[in-house]
Amino acid sequence: EEASVSIADMEDPYAFEPRRHPALKPSNLKPFNAEPPMTLLVDSFITPSDLFYVRNHLPVPEVDEKSYSLEVSGLCVKNSSFNLEDLKKFPKYSVTATIQCAGNRRSEMVNVKPVKGLNWGQAAIGNATWSGARLIDVLKASGFKDNNLKVQHIQFEGLDTDSAHVPYGASIPAEKALDPRGDVILAYEMNGQPIPKDHGFPVRVIVPGIVGARNVKWLGRIVVSEVESDSHWQQNDYKGFSPSVDWDTVDFSKAPAIQELPVVSAICEPLEGATVKLENNKLVVRGYAWSGGGRRIIRVDVTADGGKTWHVADFTDQNDSKVPYHWAWTLWKAEIPVTQNVKKVEIWAKAVDSSYNVQPERFENIWNLRGVCGNAYHRVNVNIK
Amino acid sequence: EEASVSIADMEDPYAFEPRRHPALKPSNLKPFNAEPPMTLLVDSFITPSDLFYVRNHLPVPEVDEKSYSLEVSGLCVKNSSFNLEDLKKFPKYSVTATIQCAGNRRSEMVNVKPVKGLNWGQAAIGNATWSGARLIDVLKASGFKDNNLKVQHIQFEGLDTDSAHVPYGASIPAEKALDPRGDVILAYEMNGQPIPKDHGFPVRVIVPGIVGARNVKWLGRIVVSEVESDSHWQQNDYKGFSPSVDWDTVDFSKAPAIQELPVVSAICEPLEGATVKLENNKLVVRGYAWSGGGRRIIRVDVTADGGKTWHVADFTDQNDSKVPYHWAWTLWKAEIPVTQNVKKVEIWAKAVDSSYNVQPERFENIWNLRGVCGNAYHRVNVNIK
Ligand SMILES: [Mo]
Ligand SMILES: [Mo]
Repeated sequence: EEASVSIADMEDPYAFEPRRHPALKPSNLKPFNAEPPMTLLVDSFITPSDLFYVRNHLPVPEVDEKSYSLEVSGLCVKNSSFNLEDLKKFPKYSVTATIQCAGNRRSEMVNVKPVKGLNWGQAAIGNATWSGARLIDVLKASGFKDNNLKVQHIQFEGLDTDSAHVPYGASIPAEKALDPRGDVILAYEMNGQPIPKDHGFPVRVIVPGIVGARNVKWLGRIVVSEVESDSHWQQNDYKGFSPSVDWDTVDFSKAPAIQELPVVSAICEPLEGATVKLENNKLVVRGYAWSGGGRRIIRVDVTADGGKTWHVADFTDQNDSKVPYHWAWTLWKAEIPVTQNVKKVEIWAKAVDSSYNVQPERFENIWNLRGVCGNAYHRVNVNIK
Repeated sequence: EEASVSIADMEDPYAFEPRRHPALKPSNLKPFNAEPPMTLLVDSFITPSDLFYVRNHLPVPEVDEKSYSLEVSGLCVKNSSFNLEDLKKFPKYSVTATIQCAGNRRSEMVNVKPVKGLNWGQAAIGNATWSGARLIDVLKASGFKDNNLKVQHIQFEGLDTDSAHVPYGASIPAEKALDPRGDVILAYEMNGQPIPKDHGFPVRVIVPGIVGARNVKWLGRIVVSEVESDSHWQQNDYKGFSPSVDWDTVDFSKAPAIQELPVVSAICEPLEGATVKLENNKLVVRGYAWSGGGRRIIRVDVTADGGKTWHVADFTDQNDSKVPYHWAWTLWKAEIPVTQNVKKVEIWAKAVDSSYNVQPERFENIWNLRGVCGNAYHRVNVNIK
């Protein structure tokens, strides 16, 4: 019987998929991709691990904790390997960081014109506390010494592979990886527990402020390099283009790989199409806001009258512990006065980050063929009871 | 006669104003504020010093190069002073950096609703090569040792004062000032020559990627501190607010002082209202783009049909020498096909920076009572010959 299971496993790359929380709404099953309901998302500053969005590019690999080994190679390091116990011997470092999929909110962009990509709502984002060894400590233990100008990129390979045994891969700029305040960690815990299978068990690299796609799960190899990862996902995906570029004219070499994401926000309550009761003639609106690169959210404005009056939201949760960098999202709440007898309103939200960057009003002029970086104002239509 | 000049000087704080280039268009005379014509601006990657926009908050002070002294005081330093010769003994460091006034493009925002501030066009921005001593070297020579967590801000005072003898002042966050790659310098040269009087003779602090207002001219004092500058310009000016905040409701303590500026671009040619000749049925459009915080411009899109088709501009000038930070602006050119018999077009330009931040479409929803951070799409109406 064991033998037949083993044959079955070889035949079905999806044999090792974990059980998932029933509240997760899949946008794809194989590979598994799913997001939580918005109302659960906004309920807690720290997203529970089993409700954290799942964005898998390939089947979940079966990794044996005991035989797990992380390989380090490349420029300025000697080939080294670290098992999980080795990694746990480094000083343990925790960082609360939001991770967002580049395709979050793609379902709104699609209304302009179809795009290629999973049809994410607004919940392909989550905020967790990640703990593990600092990348820089592990590189130093591999013989890496200080900044070498040749070192430009740190590449990561996952243990997840496609049918041709090519692993998932990505890279980040060396200046992010080596920044003492960059907080890049090789995490073996998510919210105080071993990282769940869907989130990269046993080790995921956490790159705060950088698009989810570079936060490689099931981390198997680190390569110190002069060049970016040559993986499909670094070279020919996860890049932004002009709205006029289509699949006939696109040249992926012309756009930089997405790293830091732009400022974004979304309304999590009420939901699109909901019928809501006013509280003291006010509409209660809640949501999240976040910006890449560690930029803090400094203001969220909400309107229910098409921008004639904007209301500054209160921040219900904002972590100030990592100055100057704010890796975590901001949760906010606004109470909008609504004129009596109004039966329908459209609510808009927009955020401003610490560089005074703002969101664009609409998706029309940021549309791109891969449907990434969708950060236009979020607009929600509700009926008033 | 010398005595009478001296009395006149005491009576007229504007007695020391320098001669200015006749092409500069003043938005105010006392204090002097002026910008160059757009067509001259876009003509060179390095803005000639005499055409660089002038934003003075107070009268230009008369500073004697021989008796000039820069005072350093505050936390973790011993009170020190440096004359110009002392500063020139430090390693000389050059950086090509764009400086932009927070109020650049205010004249466009005013079309939504009046604001308080000088009526700048799109040329309150310029790009120059600045040379001088590194701030960090001067702090170290004053006894400053490494990062002390108490040190949060570096304050600067100008030698320019108001009628009550209060100097111009500003501050920047310590993490910017102390970042070895932050390139903050105490410049005594602009484009290879002593800094002109209007630009801060003999010493201006250059803070690349940060709003002009913190690049203090006629630098007289540096204070290492736990707190921001208490000057009017740091505390009660140069901050952004929600469009619904007016002068009755504004609370300046609620917004952070502007430091990094958001992504911006402008069309410099053709000018608003111009009549232009097509070249091979194409409209030639030129302009600049820039983003704060050292974020590189990765794309500029131009449309002449209201966004139905966007054309990706070519970069005619982009300095790649400072990776990862790009302090200098990008000059660009686009050639837009125009349908025959079209007599009028509106051209829009928008830029994207390396964090994939974009510009907002219109000024309506970024309007703020001080008219700062005006980075909506630039729109220019032209007639086709
Ligand atoms: Mo993603
Ligand atoms: Mo300014």
